[in-house]
Amino acid sequence: MNQQVNIDELEVGFDIPAAIGMSEDEIQTPCLVLDLDALERNIKKMGDWAKEHGVRHRVHGKMHKSVDVAKLQESLGGSCGVCCQKVSEAEVFARGGIKDVLVSNQVRDPAKIDRLARLPKLGARTIVCVDDVENVADLSAGAQKHGTEIECLVEIDCGAGRCGVTTTPAVIEIAKAIDAAPGLKFSGIQAYQGAMQHIDSYDERKAKIDTAVAMVRDAVDGLKAEGLECDIVGGGGTGSYYFEGTSGVYNELQCGSYAFMDADYGRILDKDGKRIDQGEWENALFILTSVMSHAKSDKAIVDAGLKAQSVDSGLPTVFGRDDVKYIKCSDEHGVVEDGQGVLKANDKLRLVPGHCDPTCNVHDWYVGVRGGKVETLWPVSARGKAY
Amino acid sequence: MNQQVNIDELEVGFDIPAAIGMSEDEIQTPCLVLDLDALERNIKKMGDWAKEHGVRHRVHGKMHKSVDVAKLQESLGGSCGVCCQKVSEAEVFARGGIKDVLVSNQVRDPAKIDRLARLPKLGARTIVCVDDVENVADLSAGAQKHGTEIECLVEIDCGAGRCGVTTTPAVIEIAKAIDAAPGLKFSGIQAYQGAMQHIDSYDERKAKIDTAVAMVRDAVDGLKAEGLECDIVGGGGTGSYYFEGTSGVYNELQCGSYAFMDADYGRILDKDGKRIDQGEWENALFILTSVMSHAKSDKAIVDAGLKAQSVDSGLPTVFGRDDVKYIKCSDEHGVVEDGQGVLKANDKLRLVPGHCDPTCNVHDWYVGVRGGKVETLWPVSARGKAY
Repeated sequence: MNQQVNIDELEVGFDIPAAIGMSEDEIQTPCLVLDLDALERNIKKMGDWAKEHGVRHRVHGKMHKSVDVAKLQESLGGSCGVCCQKVSEAEVFARGGIKDVLVSNQVRDPAKIDRLARLPKLGARTIVCVDDVENVADLSAGAQKHGTEIECLVEIDCGAGRCGVTTTPAVIEIAKAIDAAPGLKFSGIQAYQGAMQHIDSYDERKAKIDTAVAMVRDAVDGLKAEGLECDIVGGGGTGSYYFEGTSGVYNELQCGSYAFMDADYGRILDKDGKRIDQGEWENALFILTSVMSHAKSDKAIVDAGLKAQSVDSGLPTVFGRDDVKYIKCSDEHGVVEDGQGVLKANDKLRLVPGHCDPTCNVHDWYVGVRGGKVETLWPVSARGKAY
Repeated sequence: MNQQVNIDELEVGFDIPAAIGMSEDEIQTPCLVLDLDALERNIKKMGDWAKEHGVRHRVHGKMHKSVDVAKLQESLGGSCGVCCQKVSEAEVFARGGIKDVLVSNQVRDPAKIDRLARLPKLGARTIVCVDDVENVADLSAGAQKHGTEIECLVEIDCGAGRCGVTTTPAVIEIAKAIDAAPGLKFSGIQAYQGAMQHIDSYDERKAKIDTAVAMVRDAVDGLKAEGLECDIVGGGGTGSYYFEGTSGVYNELQCGSYAFMDADYGRILDKDGKRIDQGEWENALFILTSVMSHAKSDKAIVDAGLKAQSVDSGLPTVFGRDDVKYIKCSDEHGVVEDGQGVLKANDKLRLVPGHCDPTCNVHDWYVGVRGGKVETLWPVSARGKAY
């Protein structure tokens, strides 16, 4: 439990969806449920893979936004630290006791740079990404003001089409500026190919990562020729970690979704053409929802709509059921096709969210369940930390 | 300000995005900004319309989830109360001092019924919707247990395809059961045509509402013949209120989005073929976002992605600018096309969200701005209240 939360002050059904010891059918819906057995198996499996292949695993905390899950990934999965996307998230993780935090994103706003520069005072190694030489002076000034050190990775856009530079000369230019700037330390490269993670075909994903690896290798070699060594070469996600992790170039993976899984990731195929949610990873995260209306014989209306999830990557699927289907979503309603009329009021369904990250971000709590009983209540500690 | 929040304990950039008196360019992004002048004009305009047409306006609190906005709608717009979709939202409004609260939805879970039945003890008239005669006994038992009265509206599905019955005999059956049940009071009909609100064409929307009005009139007449009068005949939204409000059947409107506006609603056309965000309503709600990377000459990367908004109804638009366009969204990034290279790091843009309701639900604060300065900080009081 996050120690900042006093559970006794909260009310089940108002501030929290459940109480420890409840059975799953008493949980107030809609809410997020974690299958703790599945979660632990996923975390251990990825940790073992990284260890076996001699790479570090810096887990992506932006997915779950939970100090408790991050600590489980540390203790059970041997993670070397956390990455996240926002300074306010980094503050949550550092305050929660995570000692090694990478903001795998650009920080440009002066107030945010000031906050970032204070993070090492919380005892956390603090790392950030840079894709513009103009940013270097601002970061340096922040670090000097607070007497701290900010480590910097140069971000390469290796296909995601967002932040990051695209040529080795540009990488070297920024790296040199970092290396020369007081208060900053050049620590390596960030190169996450976000755009390919959700391509179904294993071979197509591999081709995209081959391109990324070639770009990164060229940059690492170019930096070396200038006397700049990369402590961290980071990237890799749930749909690609086996490529980066065996590339001989990347040394830190940054997987997030593997721990929870979702419907969109679940559809991609492994090297044998099998969906990755059918063996490689287990669904550990569910939106628990209840039937609240069945006025039409062939449709059940459930209480999880757009405010209980993000549908940017498609609708949720109903876990473990092929007799009913979630077919439509409005703000507070989900329409579930129930042609055989098997559902009735108050029946509960476990939904697999289409996209785990933004779905977790609308909830305040994870209800951890084992053997049908509520075992833990973990706050989504960095929920809403968007700054 | 909501009195439960002690602003002094919070930190700008961590718990809150701004401080009173700041200029707009100092606000920490991404966050929600309200143009207070536009908001007040929208609220007053709808209030005046309802008054002029002799109908009550029960504002939809599910849209903004804010006690402060609801109170402004009361003082400035003359609203008769609030409707919302969840018991936990109703609790927030009742605790915040709203005296007349309708849960315009079904409440079936025993624990939720128990909470609903306690609401009148907070001083709030408590109203709920029913579409299943089996629900009546449970609501009645809850009200009797707490010695309170729950008012019930029979919900008619007049085209939304969610909750609600579809025939007058079904309405009468449920109404009679409510009327006979201790602790309950039959108070009328709920009939919101949610599915037509976003149809562009005024005439097509009118045709859908004509059908809805005919269904509702038939039900009201049928109930009357059985000696059951409707105190409330409620429905109507931002895309249709002029139809329900002049129908002679509906007596309570339930508009929500008019107060803030959004890109999806803005596209629908009024009777003169003009977009409703070009005269009828003003954009009062914005996602303030900052440029954090411009490593590619033709694209700026901004800090508002999927965790700062819901894109279920399309991407946001950039307010007041036709030289740049928001074209892509991932978890924490937005890609803004900037062919002329007019943007630079830390430039701020006001985005009009695609869909206001689920966008508000991911934020903790409304930053109220007037004349370029932060004037108010209102908590999104019922954010995450999904139970």
